[in-house]
Amino acid sequence: MSVPNVSLAAVMPEPGAAVEVREVPLPDLEPDSALLKVELSEVCGTDVYLREGRLAGVPYPIVPGHVSVGELDKIRGTLLDVNGKPFAEGDRVTFLDVHRTCHTCWYCTVAKASTRCPHRKVYGITYGLNDDGLTGGWAQYIYLKPGARCIRMDGVPSELYMAGGCSLPTALHAVERADVRLGDTVLVLGSGPVGLSAIGFAKLSGAARVLCIGAPDTRLSSASRIGADATLNFTDRSDEARLEWVRSQTNGRGADVTIECTGVPAAVTQSMRFTRDNGTVVVVGQYTDHGETAFNPHLDLNQKHLDIRGCWGSDYSHFHRGVDILRMPAAAALWSGITLDSYRLSQTNEALAEVEAGRAIKALIVPEP
Amino acid sequence: MSVPNVSLAAVMPEPGAAVEVREVPLPDLEPDSALLKVELSEVCGTDVYLREGRLAGVPYPIVPGHVSVGELDKIRGTLLDVNGKPFAEGDRVTFLDVHRTCHTCWYCTVAKASTRCPHRKVYGITYGLNDDGLTGGWAQYIYLKPGARCIRMDGVPSELYMAGGCSLPTALHAVERADVRLGDTVLVLGSGPVGLSAIGFAKLSGAARVLCIGAPDTRLSSASRIGADATLNFTDRSDEARLEWVRSQTNGRGADVTIECTGVPAAVTQSMRFTRDNGTVVVVGQYTDHGETAFNPHLDLNQKHLDIRGCWGSDYSHFHRGVDILRMPAAAALWSGITLDSYRLSQTNEALAEVEAGRAIKALIVPEP
Amino acid sequence: MSVPNVSLAAVMPEPGAAVEVREVPLPDLEPDSALLKVELSEVCGTDVYLREGRLAGVPYPIVPGHVSVGELDKIRGTLLDVNGKPFAEGDRVTFLDVHRTCHTCWYCTVAKASTRCPHRKVYGITYGLNDDGLTGGWAQYIYLKPGARCIRMDGVPSELYMAGGCSLPTALHAVERADVRLGDTVLVLGSGPVGLSAIGFAKLSGAARVLCIGAPDTRLSSASRIGADATLNFTDRSDEARLEWVRSQTNGRGADVTIECTGVPAAVTQSMRFTRDNGTVVVVGQYTDHGETAFNPHLDLNQKHLDIRGCWGSDYSHFHRGVDILRMPAAAALWSGITLDSYRLSQTNEALAEVEAGRAIKALIVPEP
Amino acid sequence: MSVPNVSLAAVMPEPGAAVEVREVPLPDLEPDSALLKVELSEVCGTDVYLREGRLAGVPYPIVPGHVSVGELDKIRGTLLDVNGKPFAEGDRVTFLDVHRTCHTCWYCTVAKASTRCPHRKVYGITYGLNDDGLTGGWAQYIYLKPGARCIRMDGVPSELYMAGGCSLPTALHAVERADVRLGDTVLVLGSGPVGLSAIGFAKLSGAARVLCIGAPDTRLSSASRIGADATLNFTDRSDEARLEWVRSQTNGRGADVTIECTGVPAAVTQSMRFTRDNGTVVVVGQYTDHGETAFNPHLDLNQKHLDIRGCWGSDYSHFHRGVDILRMPAAAALWSGITLDSYRLSQTNEALAEVEAGRAIKALIVPEP
Repeated sequence: MSVPNVSLAAVMPEPGAAVEVREVPLPDLEPDSALLKVELSEVCGTDVYLREGRLAGVPYPIVPGHVSVGELDKIRGTLLDVNGKPFAEGDRVTFLDVHRTCHTCWYCTVAKASTRCPHRKVYGITYGLNDDGLTGGWAQYIYLKPGARCIRMDGVPSELYMAGGCSLPTALHAVERADVRLGDTVLVLGSGPVGLSAIGFAKLSGAARVLCIGAPDTRLSSASRIGADATLNFTDRSDEARLEWVRSQTNGRGADVTIECTGVPAAVTQSMRFTRDNGTVVVVGQYTDHGETAFNPHLDLNQKHLDIRGCWGSDYSHFHRGVDILRMPAAAALWSGITLDSYRLSQTNEALAEVEAGRAIKALIVPEP
Repeated sequence: MSVPNVSLAAVMPEPGAAVEVREVPLPDLEPDSALLKVELSEVCGTDVYLREGRLAGVPYPIVPGHVSVGELDKIRGTLLDVNGKPFAEGDRVTFLDVHRTCHTCWYCTVAKASTRCPHRKVYGITYGLNDDGLTGGWAQYIYLKPGARCIRMDGVPSELYMAGGCSLPTALHAVERADVRLGDTVLVLGSGPVGLSAIGFAKLSGAARVLCIGAPDTRLSSASRIGADATLNFTDRSDEARLEWVRSQTNGRGADVTIECTGVPAAVTQSMRFTRDNGTVVVVGQYTDHGETAFNPHLDLNQKHLDIRGCWGSDYSHFHRGVDILRMPAAAALWSGITLDSYRLSQTNEALAEVEAGRAIKALIVPEP
Repeated sequence: MSVPNVSLAAVMPEPGAAVEVREVPLPDLEPDSALLKVELSEVCGTDVYLREGRLAGVPYPIVPGHVSVGELDKIRGTLLDVNGKPFAEGDRVTFLDVHRTCHTCWYCTVAKASTRCPHRKVYGITYGLNDDGLTGGWAQYIYLKPGARCIRMDGVPSELYMAGGCSLPTALHAVERADVRLGDTVLVLGSGPVGLSAIGFAKLSGAARVLCIGAPDTRLSSASRIGADATLNFTDRSDEARLEWVRSQTNGRGADVTIECTGVPAAVTQSMRFTRDNGTVVVVGQYTDHGETAFNPHLDLNQKHLDIRGCWGSDYSHFHRGVDILRMPAAAALWSGITLDSYRLSQTNEALAEVEAGRAIKALIVPEP
Repeated sequence: MSVPNVSLAAVMPEPGAAVEVREVPLPDLEPDSALLKVELSEVCGTDVYLREGRLAGVPYPIVPGHVSVGELDKIRGTLLDVNGKPFAEGDRVTFLDVHRTCHTCWYCTVAKASTRCPHRKVYGITYGLNDDGLTGGWAQYIYLKPGARCIRMDGVPSELYMAGGCSLPTALHAVERADVRLGDTVLVLGSGPVGLSAIGFAKLSGAARVLCIGAPDTRLSSASRIGADATLNFTDRSDEARLEWVRSQTNGRGADVTIECTGVPAAVTQSMRFTRDNGTVVVVGQYTDHGETAFNPHLDLNQKHLDIRGCWGSDYSHFHRGVDILRMPAAAALWSGITLDSYRLSQTNEALAEVEAGRAIKALIVPEP
């Protein structure tokens, strides 16, 4: 197959500006790099914030799209999987959007908290078009720089994987950190993509019941299909009504584990109140600064003997295990319950609008005609 | 020795009223109960709140004083230690102030969170004079009801033990929950009794450096003697100045572990900011409701990948291990650095005033002339 | 319903002797005790060892049967569940076979290892007929002494619960201790009742694949029905062939987690070899002394950076959570795959023979005609 | 300072042969590599096994000496510490002997068990003279290949650091894995370098008492100086006598934590027997294959509800934290209790003989005259 010289790419030129499709030259491959022909990428909430310019350190213009799946179109040199087996051109893969985790800084080596490594770069977010070229998924091709880590997609349909998308590793990290025990009642706050994948992983982890508070009803239907046993549309409900609902579902005690996936600061305070004494709260919905919230340290934390765990980013293990888990028939059945909406490269502004409005459940970008 | 028929006791008649010394008849001992002749009891911050009526469910009039040490004056039936060895009259002991942990409720049996057992009663706090008699340490005698758990004080001077007092099990529980690693930098917020004991336990647990932010200077001197490597008097310092001080002590990163022991809601938010990414915060200073505080869930929690752990109450293990630890020469050297102020039963109002004003570091009650 | 004066009971008179059915007088109920009318009890491997006299400290004659389900026939005083709700006569319940965990010894209070409490007594094993009366399930009635802990069976059919029987809490404890992670490959050695329940719990905990090595084929069929993805009949296989099979199922690395449930000492060594480096082995199959086994500490343990965890007994939480879990439809579907064989009180010798020979998968005792 | 063209190096030509001093040409430095002028290196038990040819995969001839301290003599390009600060020529440093941990294989990325990475190379052990040049510490110079990780020694005297030597990270890893709790009794089996450092770390971690069983008396004297509260010379003692001694020191229960550092397979079985029920055993003394040992899985493991943890290798964090810990005055006081014996490059055969015979406590190599 002859590779073209250019790739179409949907580019965010600067904060606040509309996305525009451009022709970008394909790079010369460095040793041990590759070119990925994109089959599917996605639009996530972060992309909305990127357009609004709410994230710091973004080198506009950028090509958004941090998690994608596609075919290895060209490999220069050697690209190995974690078992030491070389990838071949034509292999269908996804890749870790996080790049250049340094393995040398204090956070990487001493704290072993690599998601806090200050040197990491993220495809589609902190790599820019000018310096790094095709480094986002809203394009026909992505340049996989040396050191990019690919994962074989054998046994996992691309659409199934993208039903999770970047939420898959994010939610898996959160659910791992939640230490769900067999038979627990897990409450998920939020019914966006991270919330939905968190429901699925909580269910697979042995939660006896998974509850979800979210909106709108279309998303709550997806929540039910991916494993929620009971859902509540929070619209027009008071905080007290929500609390009462949670208690009515949990023997009056509150959830054993609550996973906050909302993006709304006040939901963090509510997550403490919705959780039983000595329970666990994982906060994974606050990836952008939306300001402060108030809580009562005596009633909401100290007296409750609560565990609250922030959860930032993901590493290779979450991608790898996420794909492994999707090979489980039980997982495939759950994630296939997520409704997908597909958009062309020329439709990314429309896709962003649908995601921002909460009308799309999971918006995919399909670069090829 | 002939036991008298009555015991002097300092009684809080009702919220807001002054403490008064009364004569209280000694009880008839039920089977497997005992009478403890009090050598030392204490005044802690909770006693100040008790006088102010800030705790719910207190059956006034009460005899305050929840942690005490003394001599078993009379035993009816059998009283065993955890090794199955019977106590004898004359043995010097302390006892677990928490009584009637039920071992049958959901929190005791399924969640294994016995400090959240709703049936537990606490000597000196939730036992009242009218129904339960001599159930506080501000008295010549304490009635150890059946099921009370005593601990031998062999090898631990009474004053050394009371230098920790009720803060000993409270702080030990907090430090256990902090998972201090060898070589960590631990920051303790607050230099009251819980803060001081937390410093000592953090130091013994292998912290390379223990920092303390507190006030006044007299307490910070105690902080230094019990193991703090550096202290900061927060008076007249801005939040920013405190943060800068912490960073200057921690390679710019913040503490590995912060233990909040202040009683001030805003300190909980600061504890998040003073802690490094992926560090741990234990909140043990919020035993009374002092209202809300604001924090930024994105900056202070989620992005920091932080662990925040509320820590409520203590159980027998914390008392037992606390006494065991004081048998270590290294521990004795630390706790002997705490300045003690002794008061008679007739001086408890004065003692409360000194504690409330933060002038007393550790106030003891000495019932016997 | 009028309660009779006597209960039929199948009694083991002494080690080595046949079980015989006797009439035993019903006890006078102490305050806060109860009489349980047995619907189903069970025969487990321990009962075979009891007949052989291989356990120490058994007060023959005994009525075997440690886990049972039935109806509360008569309650004297008050019997509460963990939520504080009183039981009523006619309620269908199971109860914790472990009694008199002391909550006062060093193991109960300081180590928090209550399954190592030296004071605990077990219905059907360490309670004897002469001193304690009807304290085993192979009888029409069981005397629930004061302090016995009952669990409501609402929503859980008796036969479904007894398909797990005493293996349910035992295996749940083992799987909790195994810390199965979502997507793990779990290997279960042994296909007796504990192995089968371990398979079910591992599957529910999110294992991507559960492997089982056992025998005979009838049990392996049950293994498949309760969740095993692949099974191996070890008969006529060498250790090397088994190892090769495990590796062929695990990318050449070995299982992430191995749960040993065999009763054969050599299987403990094999469990180390079948597990990947830095994996986890739980040993729960060695409840009786069958002698020693050899292993290589360098190759099998130190160089592998392995975790090996012994798992003894169970406590109330394992019974309670076990019943809760069986209320999950996914769990009911798994445990309903276990084949049950029912025996009358007069057939317990035959039942023991079937269990000993490995012909019965799960043998139940049905006391009522 | 003018760097010479050659370095003297003590070379093991092949298994079984005597070490000989050779002149080895200094390498041309690759980009971002460095030359370390060795101040001190060491002789450890592994070096004895290297001479005997008991380790697999060793590319003889080799220059032994895996942990060393010295001065950065020449840096080509940039060498950064974990805080991003560049090293300068003249800095006194140690470096991580483990090199080329890949950060890409399944063990590095998914299992996060980097000490089981199959690609790692160890200076002085699996790097050979022919292919890799000066890659061991028994030489005037070590070639620090690109990617080598150095640690500043500011505040830590070289001799103090080498008193731990390679045992420092090994023992720290073991003690971290032991989860020592404040007030525990820790038993260390073995009084060689790893055992001695394990004693020190256990003491610093808050062990109330550290016990050591070892030999000969000279090493037990070092054990006492580095923190052991009681020691037993095992020579001429039966297993029963040792067990009785441990019980006499532990209220009859056994140690809370036992750390096996002996190199003798039978000691692993004893470590199980010397530990209390529900205690923890860390096995770190079995770095070489010395054959099998027998144990009783029922009595020694399952019924005891024991945790046994193999501990292999170390990573950068153990070196970094080890150096940090030695900056604590309490640590310096402990490790200064280890007796050092120094040998020239021409005396390494003698040094090996002393180490093999157990006469040397810690043998250092001093390359410079």
